[in-house]
Amino acid sequence: MNLTNNNDTICALATGGGMSAIALIRLSGLESIKIANKIFSKNLQNKKSHTVHFGTILEDTKIIDEVVLTIFHKDNSFTGEETVEISCHGSTYIQNKILELLIIKGVRVAIPGEFTMRAFKNGKLDLSQAESVADLIESESTAAHETAIKHLRGGFSKKLKKLRAKLIDFASLIELELDFSEEDVEFANRNQLKDLVSEMHKEVSTLIESFKLGNVIKNGIPVAILGAPNVGKSTLLNSLLNEDKAIVSDIAGTTRDSIEDELIIKGYNFRFIDTAGIRKTEDIIETLGIEKTLLQANKSTIIIYLIDATLDINQQLIDIKKLEKEDQRKVIKVINKIDLNSSIKNQLQDIVYISAKEKKGLEKLKDEILDFTNLNSLSNNNTIITNQRHFDQLNKTLNELDIIVDGLSNDLSSELLSINIKQSLFHLGLITGEVSTDDLLANIFGKFCIGK
Amino acid sequence: MNLTNNNDTICALATGGGMSAIALIRLSGLESIKIANKIFSKNLQNKKSHTVHFGTILEDTKIIDEVVLTIFHKDNSFTGEETVEISCHGSTYIQNKILELLIIKGVRVAIPGEFTMRAFKNGKLDLSQAESVADLIESESTAAHETAIKHLRGGFSKKLKKLRAKLIDFASLIELELDFSEEDVEFANRNQLKDLVSEMHKEVSTLIESFKLGNVIKNGIPVAILGAPNVGKSTLLNSLLNEDKAIVSDIAGTTRDSIEDELIIKGYNFRFIDTAGIRKTEDIIETLGIEKTLLQANKSTIIIYLIDATLDINQQLIDIKKLEKEDQRKVIKVINKIDLNSSIKNQLQDIVYISAKEKKGLEKLKDEILDFTNLNSLSNNNTIITNQRHFDQLNKTLNELDIIVDGLSNDLSSELLSINIKQSLFHLGLITGEVSTDDLLANIFGKFCIGK
Repeated sequence: MNLTNNNDTICALATGGGMSAIALIRLSGLESIKIANKIFSKNLQNKKSHTVHFGTILEDTKIIDEVVLTIFHKDNSFTGEETVEISCHGSTYIQNKILELLIIKGVRVAIPGEFTMRAFKNGKLDLSQAESVADLIESESTAAHETAIKHLRGGFSKKLKKLRAKLIDFASLIELELDFSEEDVEFANRNQLKDLVSEMHKEVSTLIESFKLGNVIKNGIPVAILGAPNVGKSTLLNSLLNEDKAIVSDIAGTTRDSIEDELIIKGYNFRFIDTAGIRKTEDIIETLGIEKTLLQANKSTIIIYLIDATLDINQQLIDIKKLEKEDQRKVIKVINKIDLNSSIKNQLQDIVYISAKEKKGLEKLKDEILDFTNLNSLSNNNTIITNQRHFDQLNKTLNELDIIVDGLSNDLSSELLSINIKQSLFHLGLITGEVSTDDLLANIFGKFCIGK
Repeated sequence: MNLTNNNDTICALATGGGMSAIALIRLSGLESIKIANKIFSKNLQNKKSHTVHFGTILEDTKIIDEVVLTIFHKDNSFTGEETVEISCHGSTYIQNKILELLIIKGVRVAIPGEFTMRAFKNGKLDLSQAESVADLIESESTAAHETAIKHLRGGFSKKLKKLRAKLIDFASLIELELDFSEEDVEFANRNQLKDLVSEMHKEVSTLIESFKLGNVIKNGIPVAILGAPNVGKSTLLNSLLNEDKAIVSDIAGTTRDSIEDELIIKGYNFRFIDTAGIRKTEDIIETLGIEKTLLQANKSTIIIYLIDATLDINQQLIDIKKLEKEDQRKVIKVINKIDLNSSIKNQLQDIVYISAKEKKGLEKLKDEILDFTNLNSLSNNNTIITNQRHFDQLNKTLNELDIIVDGLSNDLSSELLSINIKQSLFHLGLITGEVSTDDLLANIFGKFCIGK
């Protein structure tokens, strides 16, 4: 389809599909009200924006449903277009029937993300904000939600746009120099440019650095619980799950049952990786070898290594040492079953002592796990990049900035500087959408869910 | 919980749960606006009914989501109470978070069906209409939808209420006779009462009769395709499925894939019952015996019996005769594979000739299947009972009416007539909700989905 054509009116189911109390069908485009009017029992013409109308959806004279219909005029809608929302009974039959009637009256079914794409095209959101809509919908933890809503509110792109605008000023001055190249004048103050590029370099580096956290916030932080059989791995996981059942799980049917190895601790989503293979052998480090163990825990950012308090602790610690040497990940050493060995007195400093069964020491363990997330990053109100595409473009920008820094040190010609400045502007612009292509948009919005 | 207490404010997710573009959270009760106001960025007090407000949901100063919030004042809401609808981004995190904030501010989570129950208690719907809301949400076929929306619009209960009101008049007159019993006067005209009871008897009988169709409309009409292996049972089902793919299945992800043995023909939902056991043997009637075959097709209202045109047709017809004798169901005899036997010329009158493979004769077969549904019942605008509870109460009513008819013929005393009239009124009243108990309401609304 032609992505630049916003002249038609689109519709889609915006709610979850399947049976529910209420379902919501959304229309956007020039003829939304005109077309909705054709299947609605009351006259919608000349109604004010943000008003709600109770009436029936009609197929000729046959009543399909009693619905509540909301009108948004184009200046105050999400898409920046005339919008109608139909709130109907959530029967699959009714949902499909209303969509069918709308299509017959001339509305097209929206492709995934098309509402948000139109919001972008109509200047209601920049590209990075539009992308955060998808992240917001997918967010399952406080941290993921918080970064997404920050991006939606525009903090990130505002910062980039500001830097980019400054660079554009320099780019124009340098272009001017090129026009007067025979006269060898400098309109662009090289020292000011140097300062700006240095400021940008710092900002972009910080953003790139934040992706390490941002990526795991978005996708969950993988944690492997390792240890010999019967050391209490499942007991630990169950105890953690029990402890952290949020208030919300009593409210609505949460999905915890089906993904019981996902656990949100203080707003961060941790994914516990199954290391089932290790369970089958007695002395895991010796038998499987360190390589294989690491392979098992390959996907994890954090490894919790459980030690049995009732067995030879020193021998187990020696085994873990081998693990630590081979790996750069955070390894948390945990002695479990302290309830069964009264001689243990929390003596070693870098070890967490717990009884998974009696839920002792779990708070300390959670603090250790949370340590990785470097909580300050969020509370300090820093911007955190969570989007792989932004990360890639920022890296490309940084690359160009490096070249500009070098060039400025070596008194590079305006002509050569100009190329890299334009490239920086291009890559930054791709993030905010000040630069975009149909392919890029199709790629981004194609990942959205239908109706958004 | 105390079902008679509507003083608190309730909330629930009204859309499907899980991730979606938009989710809808609904509040109903005295303090809906006041409490929503506590977590919303704009002041909602003194806003008009049926107005929509864009703003943010706040946890203290932290933004949880950008939402669209709709206000309904109590005189014009579904529940008959002050109502607020919050349309938020459909992330599970946000949905749960908003519910959590509302609960903290003093809203209670609604039990299933509680919104509709409040609508009933506040006189916005009678009981039979309230029940039809659940049926409407569950409707998957045109016929199921049509009967549900008719009930929601109140046609059925209006009829019952009218009859009941007339009977109440007689009941009062007869009560009056009892007060004056020593004077032996008749205030209630026995002939008029006889006429009324006779009219009611007819109406109630017709309604009871309609349940035969109503029940299968609601739950789908079970059809068994029987026949020897390789007679083309699967080919037939596939051909029927292909033919009847409704327009709607191109629009939204329909559920057809997962329940591929459900098929809607001209708005009626047919459920094709698997008779797998029969497939394993060659001469099914002889080997398994008629009893076992019937057991296999026990759940079906219609049996399609496939005959192989390339084998001995007469022998197969003899086998079916045995089936027909043992069973009261509609058996449709179908000769398949007519494309492989050119000598067949549609000679026998009560047999449908088809080629499932070449999709020949399918229209005729569908007409035969639809014949059962007695299409006139719907098109004649007759009321069709789909609810087992209504069916039961109508039968009890009819039983009382029978006794009254007998009593009137035998000049029964006012005292005795009065008992049965009261019983009739009681059973009719239970359908419309003019009579109700907390147990009954809990039972009815407990079957609703959450948020309705």
